[in-house]
Amino acid sequence: MGQIITFGEVLMRISPKSNKKFIQSNSVEFYFGGTELNVAISIANFGGDVKHISAVSEDFIGETAISYIRKFGVDTTSITLSERPLGVYFLEVGAVMRPSAISYNRSHSAFSQIVPENINWENALENGSWMHWTGITPALSKGAFDTLKAGLKLARQKGMTVSADPTYRSGLWKYGQDPKEALIELLGYSTIFIGGINEINEVLGTDFGYANEDFLEASKQLMQTFPTIEKVFDKIRTSLNSSWHKIRARMWNGIEFRETQDLDITHIVDRIGTGDAFAAGLIYGLQQFDDYKALEFASAACALKHTYEGDVNLTTVKEVTNILGGNTTGRFVR
Amino acid sequence: MGQIITFGEVLMRISPKSNKKFIQSNSVEFYFGGTELNVAISIANFGGDVKHISAVSEDFIGETAISYIRKFGVDTTSITLSERPLGVYFLEVGAVMRPSAISYNRSHSAFSQIVPENINWENALENGSWMHWTGITPALSKGAFDTLKAGLKLARQKGMTVSADPTYRSGLWKYGQDPKEALIELLGYSTIFIGGINEINEVLGTDFGYANEDFLEASKQLMQTFPTIEKVFDKIRTSLNSSWHKIRARMWNGIEFRETQDLDITHIVDRIGTGDAFAAGLIYGLQQFDDYKALEFASAACALKHTYEGDVNLTTVKEVTNILGGNTTGRFVR
Amino acid sequence: MGQIITFGEVLMRISPKSNKKFIQSNSVEFYFGGTELNVAISIANFGGDVKHISAVSEDFIGETAISYIRKFGVDTTSITLSERPLGVYFLEVGAVMRPSAISYNRSHSAFSQIVPENINWENALENGSWMHWTGITPALSKGAFDTLKAGLKLARQKGMTVSADPTYRSGLWKYGQDPKEALIELLGYSTIFIGGINEINEVLGTDFGYANEDFLEASKQLMQTFPTIEKVFDKIRTSLNSSWHKIRARMWNGIEFRETQDLDITHIVDRIGTGDAFAAGLIYGLQQFDDYKALEFASAACALKHTYEGDVNLTTVKEVTNILGGNTTGRFVR
Amino acid sequence: MGQIITFGEVLMRISPKSNKKFIQSNSVEFYFGGTELNVAISIANFGGDVKHISAVSEDFIGETAISYIRKFGVDTTSITLSERPLGVYFLEVGAVMRPSAISYNRSHSAFSQIVPENINWENALENGSWMHWTGITPALSKGAFDTLKAGLKLARQKGMTVSADPTYRSGLWKYGQDPKEALIELLGYSTIFIGGINEINEVLGTDFGYANEDFLEASKQLMQTFPTIEKVFDKIRTSLNSSWHKIRARMWNGIEFRETQDLDITHIVDRIGTGDAFAAGLIYGLQQFDDYKALEFASAACALKHTYEGDVNLTTVKEVTNILGGNTTGRFVR
Amino acid sequence: MGQIITFGEVLMRISPKSNKKFIQSNSVEFYFGGTELNVAISIANFGGDVKHISAVSEDFIGETAISYIRKFGVDTTSITLSERPLGVYFLEVGAVMRPSAISYNRSHSAFSQIVPENINWENALENGSWMHWTGITPALSKGAFDTLKAGLKLARQKGMTVSADPTYRSGLWKYGQDPKEALIELLGYSTIFIGGINEINEVLGTDFGYANEDFLEASKQLMQTFPTIEKVFDKIRTSLNSSWHKIRARMWNGIEFRETQDLDITHIVDRIGTGDAFAAGLIYGLQQFDDYKALEFASAACALKHTYEGDVNLTTVKEVTNILGGNTTGRFVR
Amino acid sequence: MGQIITFGEVLMRISPKSNKKFIQSNSVEFYFGGTELNVAISIANFGGDVKHISAVSEDFIGETAISYIRKFGVDTTSITLSERPLGVYFLEVGAVMRPSAISYNRSHSAFSQIVPENINWENALENGSWMHWTGITPALSKGAFDTLKAGLKLARQKGMTVSADPTYRSGLWKYGQDPKEALIELLGYSTIFIGGINEINEVLGTDFGYANEDFLEASKQLMQTFPTIEKVFDKIRTSLNSSWHKIRARMWNGIEFRETQDLDITHIVDRIGTGDAFAAGLIYGLQQFDDYKALEFASAACALKHTYEGDVNLTTVKEVTNILGGNTTGRFVR
Repeated sequence: MGQIITFGEVLMRISPKSNKKFIQSNSVEFYFGGTELNVAISIANFGGDVKHISAVSEDFIGETAISYIRKFGVDTTSITLSERPLGVYFLEVGAVMRPSAISYNRSHSAFSQIVPENINWENALENGSWMHWTGITPALSKGAFDTLKAGLKLARQKGMTVSADPTYRSGLWKYGQDPKEALIELLGYSTIFIGGINEINEVLGTDFGYANEDFLEASKQLMQTFPTIEKVFDKIRTSLNSSWHKIRARMWNGIEFRETQDLDITHIVDRIGTGDAFAAGLIYGLQQFDDYKALEFASAACALKHTYEGDVNLTTVKEVTNILGGNTTGRFVR
Repeated sequence: MGQIITFGEVLMRISPKSNKKFIQSNSVEFYFGGTELNVAISIANFGGDVKHISAVSEDFIGETAISYIRKFGVDTTSITLSERPLGVYFLEVGAVMRPSAISYNRSHSAFSQIVPENINWENALENGSWMHWTGITPALSKGAFDTLKAGLKLARQKGMTVSADPTYRSGLWKYGQDPKEALIELLGYSTIFIGGINEINEVLGTDFGYANEDFLEASKQLMQTFPTIEKVFDKIRTSLNSSWHKIRARMWNGIEFRETQDLDITHIVDRIGTGDAFAAGLIYGLQQFDDYKALEFASAACALKHTYEGDVNLTTVKEVTNILGGNTTGRFVR
Repeated sequence: MGQIITFGEVLMRISPKSNKKFIQSNSVEFYFGGTELNVAISIANFGGDVKHISAVSEDFIGETAISYIRKFGVDTTSITLSERPLGVYFLEVGAVMRPSAISYNRSHSAFSQIVPENINWENALENGSWMHWTGITPALSKGAFDTLKAGLKLARQKGMTVSADPTYRSGLWKYGQDPKEALIELLGYSTIFIGGINEINEVLGTDFGYANEDFLEASKQLMQTFPTIEKVFDKIRTSLNSSWHKIRARMWNGIEFRETQDLDITHIVDRIGTGDAFAAGLIYGLQQFDDYKALEFASAACALKHTYEGDVNLTTVKEVTNILGGNTTGRFVR
Repeated sequence: MGQIITFGEVLMRISPKSNKKFIQSNSVEFYFGGTELNVAISIANFGGDVKHISAVSEDFIGETAISYIRKFGVDTTSITLSERPLGVYFLEVGAVMRPSAISYNRSHSAFSQIVPENINWENALENGSWMHWTGITPALSKGAFDTLKAGLKLARQKGMTVSADPTYRSGLWKYGQDPKEALIELLGYSTIFIGGINEINEVLGTDFGYANEDFLEASKQLMQTFPTIEKVFDKIRTSLNSSWHKIRARMWNGIEFRETQDLDITHIVDRIGTGDAFAAGLIYGLQQFDDYKALEFASAACALKHTYEGDVNLTTVKEVTNILGGNTTGRFVR
Repeated sequence: MGQIITFGEVLMRISPKSNKKFIQSNSVEFYFGGTELNVAISIANFGGDVKHISAVSEDFIGETAISYIRKFGVDTTSITLSERPLGVYFLEVGAVMRPSAISYNRSHSAFSQIVPENINWENALENGSWMHWTGITPALSKGAFDTLKAGLKLARQKGMTVSADPTYRSGLWKYGQDPKEALIELLGYSTIFIGGINEINEVLGTDFGYANEDFLEASKQLMQTFPTIEKVFDKIRTSLNSSWHKIRARMWNGIEFRETQDLDITHIVDRIGTGDAFAAGLIYGLQQFDDYKALEFASAACALKHTYEGDVNLTTVKEVTNILGGNTTGRFVR
Repeated sequence: MGQIITFGEVLMRISPKSNKKFIQSNSVEFYFGGTELNVAISIANFGGDVKHISAVSEDFIGETAISYIRKFGVDTTSITLSERPLGVYFLEVGAVMRPSAISYNRSHSAFSQIVPENINWENALENGSWMHWTGITPALSKGAFDTLKAGLKLARQKGMTVSADPTYRSGLWKYGQDPKEALIELLGYSTIFIGGINEINEVLGTDFGYANEDFLEASKQLMQTFPTIEKVFDKIRTSLNSSWHKIRARMWNGIEFRETQDLDITHIVDRIGTGDAFAAGLIYGLQQFDDYKALEFASAACALKHTYEGDVNLTTVKEVTNILGGNTTGRFVR
């Protein structure tokens, strides 16, 4: 097995403690995150060999970001330094019917100003066997889109598996590029699709609903349109409120449709990065298990992420398999 | 629209973090609160023009209190300074079946020693169109009762709307005044009644139950007894335990009885000041909407308060209307 | 009533805040605990006269431990000082389906190196009327087992009540002693059995199930085997996940079988020490009430412990009786 | 040796971290203190047998105060409970040329409302051999003054040593009593005088300067006026600024005048309670050493207090004698 | 006296506690600052009527910034909201020979993107009698430079006093404007010059040294070149290391040269904003006192700022005059 | 240049904030350290390629330790996992004349139980060019001594430079080995001696004083006794008190004696690990500069360590050379 490669922005996340707002306390905490980085760190916590590629500021904030990534054993040797500042986001964590609130400061960040010349993809992918991308990166800037494209192109040339999580966030995409066209172009390099009805509708221009039959039909159409795509994985979230969700997952791999049981997350600690945890669980799982076991693994990993503060999933293979073995009561052995 | 006026004690609230007791940690946090101040700040957070009138200590604690109130944009220019200390309360936040515990240090505070001469009501109410009072103030001292009376009298002379939240807390009322007589006198100046069966029974000497029919009959009797009162609003709390409540509200405005849906608050952050949040929602809502929409607005505002730490409701009109629009799942948009 | 005596290790518990892992933050909090100490402090919080006997390090950590115990009014005059360090455990608190994780550093601690000569039992038990032991102490080392035996022997000679909580934790018991034999020997000195099916099966070599009939039959067999045992008390925990449990309790006192209602703990703050809280409730309750009332008291005390951070139950008689009186809604009076 | 008795108010001290002001952060820390309590705890930390007598609130704040005192091994069995709140003070710690700032909330506290009937002095002094008082207690209220007098009278009847630290703080003394008369009356019961030129001038109505000759002459006059006083001890502070002081001490015991070397405190952590640390050092020292050695011990104890946060001196006999042995370089041995 | 007007960027400052680096702890604190805002808040703390004009982000970070400014009583009604994020800076506080380190994220901030149309200067200066500017604002962007120019032009038309602190920071000025030309243009509107040899050399193109004679000659040349400038004030810092400085000040007002005594700051808490504290002291002082007294006031205010954490000077007139009265020993009165 | 290898215990350091004692607060912070690890991390912060070899616990504490080391870019691939717990030490930081206090819990730790079989030295030293050892490791246990010996033997066979810091701490060395003999044996493998008069006297059995002539003569004798040793480096600390030290350094390299200037550390943040910072500075410096420049570099690095909290020196080459260039005033450039 070669190295798993992720490429994307590293953001500093700054947040008051528990459910406070910034107006309530000047004591805050920071983590680092970013959708592709979250995937990378989660896989590293499963024991995988991962490299994250990015651009960070050439100062003590960028150094702190790199040291944070290195802490989890992720390879940081292809991260490039920039005169631009690191992107930041501020988060106020909601509760019950109060939604969380986010304020971004990323539009002129080190990563958003990246250009293809900043990354030597030949070196960066030297040991790579899998590359993962998301819909956030092409939304940030033309430079980010182009740099990602260059990487994916080489990845496909090298025969690497390419997983796509084409999350569509309309608030981004401000630099003039048409989102649909960009995502279609990038999906042309991809072999695994991680995403739901919304993303499929966005790229196909369809109008599927959320039922299982819709998912199945949508997946089939997607795989017809993008023949490189072999499998489609989807995660379904049911929200009682900000503090209480249920998670299940479903898949179509061209052969069988499967769906997992609901996992009931009665007391959410932090829901940021739970989608990334699902993707990481899949990427790890598909290299270890059959498709359905990987889906179950990803679904449980996603559920566990809700119990960890910060963007990244700190869970281990042991914790996930413990749940898959039926122990969801949180009983611990001394 | 003129200025909304509140008058009441400013208390410093000191509390250990999360659910700790004082015996567990010497690291604590403080906020400021007080039932009428909570109303004022909540209205300011809705965008209202509010002035809070009070007396605070002439030292760095009093200055910190004023700066706290000013932070939210509430007018503090009628707050008077005193040689007496600011009132303090200590709070240990309960959980599940453990009730919260409170220890007050307010009986000789700056506010409780107030006398009518301390407030120039003519100046203070200059731009006022609405005045709000609660049953806490007259319970504190004769001076506080008399000062409030002087203000209400002038408010009525000026034709201001007067809302009353005659919360009856038997642990106060130590200075010899009969609570019932005092509340009756003050209700004589009032046009909006915010309170439930307990308060009505207290002032009417009746024995109504909690059913809707009782509420309706009680409201009618109240409005007969106090002809200035035009509308009665009530909030009903169902408690599973300290951490899980449901909230709904009902009203009688002389024309129609209405009741809102239950809002399920599955993970309470802080229930202090939720009644004040309801009152603030009503005062703001009645100036923007019809009576039932105001009731719904107040009920949702009250529910949201349970998600904010501290005495005051930090919610915004946008957050409240988001819930009224049916989004109670806490989903946030990036 | 004489003094209640507990004997066991004092551990320093070190834990990140809320649900964090050590890898997430270098800011942590410590408490002291240990199963028998937890019982002692809980009884002291009920107003009981308790002495805890142990060995701690002769340095500022040992002094801090003693001062922590003294803070609650527990008699520390029979604690002996040692050149060995105090035992430590590290705790990561889980949530929902994530179990808590524990790392112990106790195998060469001050207490585990104790020998019978370190404790002058004649002096230590001078005012004692009740002694409580658990299955943790004999599991730690031969010295701890022998020292406990010496104490229990004298306690019985003096006619003291002896309660046993023979918790069987297989991860301990590393010094060569057969657990079953040790527990059987110690149960020979005991008059009250606090424990469930697992512990009975362990010492009887039986295979009873968890149903009430099994419990009744198991208790009868236990009392036949150990004729000094007069009463058996058991606590039953139903776990939805790490954050949501239900607790009920049952008993057989040779005359009647009784069972309490379920108490629903919807938002667990800390489950460590809840078994000790049950034992403490029983020991206190059996000296104040009849057996069933004691069982109810213990069950409610156990439930309340889930709302307090740290190993020890900070609840009071007033809080417990408040619940027994039917108020489980956490309503507080101001 | 019998028990050392102190009598005085227990205050909760609330302070922002490091040099912050309350306006800067809502995260604060609390300790307990009070001039006589500080003396008691410091002596307990030296290993002395001490009882502190006071009145605290009958709630969780009073309980926390008692537990704090008990933590240090001070006997709390003569502390009485009151319906009045515990006194509080707020502290902003200065730095360099910025003075610290204090705000008191104590004028109607549990202790200030004490009356002689609240204390059973016969029981309280049962094992007493030494009683210590300060000029703060008689300044608070007539009740406090009378209660102290009753205690001192009995202490003298029992032949106990009585040490007086008649600190004169003009901001107190609001209840009508003439300070000079009160202090004179109380000094009539005293055998050890701990105080400087200011206090002597206050009670004698003299105008001595600060030079050694003045101190000697003033002490002689004091001992002529109050024939029970056998020894006079004085501490001299030289302040460069809020963060850098020097301390030395001098004495007249009727036989010899002695003066210690300056101790240079280059980085003050907390100067509150340093005078109490001096008194505690003397009370402990005079029972262990000759007068001059006691003076040196007290002076070093006072200097060390400047390195401990909070009101109370946490230093040990070992630390103090280490300095007296000439090691003031803070070198530690591993 | 009219309102004092400041115009400049509001920055969020994020910093680890005490002397930690970001790599050491994820727990940090934030304040708001910015050189002109620091001046505004300091003057408000002296009791002055001040308005700060700026642009902040239209989200919860911008709201928190406004509430922070409002807390101190500064008029925020001319602050404009922007879609761009608020500027941020990260600070690691040095000690002894370790310098502090700063990382800015401000180049595309709400304020740096300001254009003259964003501010209605007629309204903004309606009550203004004094306007203060610094060399930071024109360095940020052409828009900021132009907007400032528009304001200063109107201020002069209205006959307002204009104070200039043309701090020259070469790391800024990236948008193409020649710094010297910009400062010369802005000085043409100014009547008070607050700055030292470096700034004079920058704008005159001279090469003066730091001696008093140089300062005198430089000031005279400056006033010849800029005939509107009536007075020149300079602050001189002598640094032993990051933790220990001395401050004195000097002036030339066209009539007399004066110099203050050194103030010895032996334990620096925070040196950020000390120059702004000097400017604020001058602006306030020149409206209350003669020039030399104002210089002394400003110098003492500057020294006191070193004892407050954060960008802004929290000192009061009372604290400053206490020092001017000769009390630099930090003694406090209770 | 090859890899620099360090071998030694990783300790978890737990300490209250600022100058607090454990009895004062249950909120503490942890770092990781250990004399050889401190050297490794400091060199990594200078940009060196370093591997640290050790044994840590196989649990979340050991994982956190490894992640801490990895964070700084130190190679952790030769760290072995153990069933034994990680060593811990508790630290109370002193101030002024109060010494710091330390409590160790390391005698049965993962590292102290190491045996030569646990480390594959061939693999571990594969890329090594320099190995560093200290007198702590052989003092811990026979296994640690033997494992170190095996490593040093191979290092010499491979022609690696071996630096020795034979710190003699008498409180360790409890397992029966004669310290002098052990150090002599290990010095036989060493080429660089980092240590002072005390260490030389210990191994030579001499009685040299601290003057420069003594140092020179002692160094010469040392190099005669141990012919592999080519250079001797010594650091001299002058302590005013716990908070204020001076540092200078001297050397004899067989050719010339040199001594650096005193560096005045007026406000110490943390003095733990300052000797290790000196060793790291030398090891890095000797590979970059001539001997005297390396000595100066090491001395400045040591001084800078006093400004960083925790065991490890976070300083960079840039910071050190800034001081060597004469800038000791802590001025920072924006």
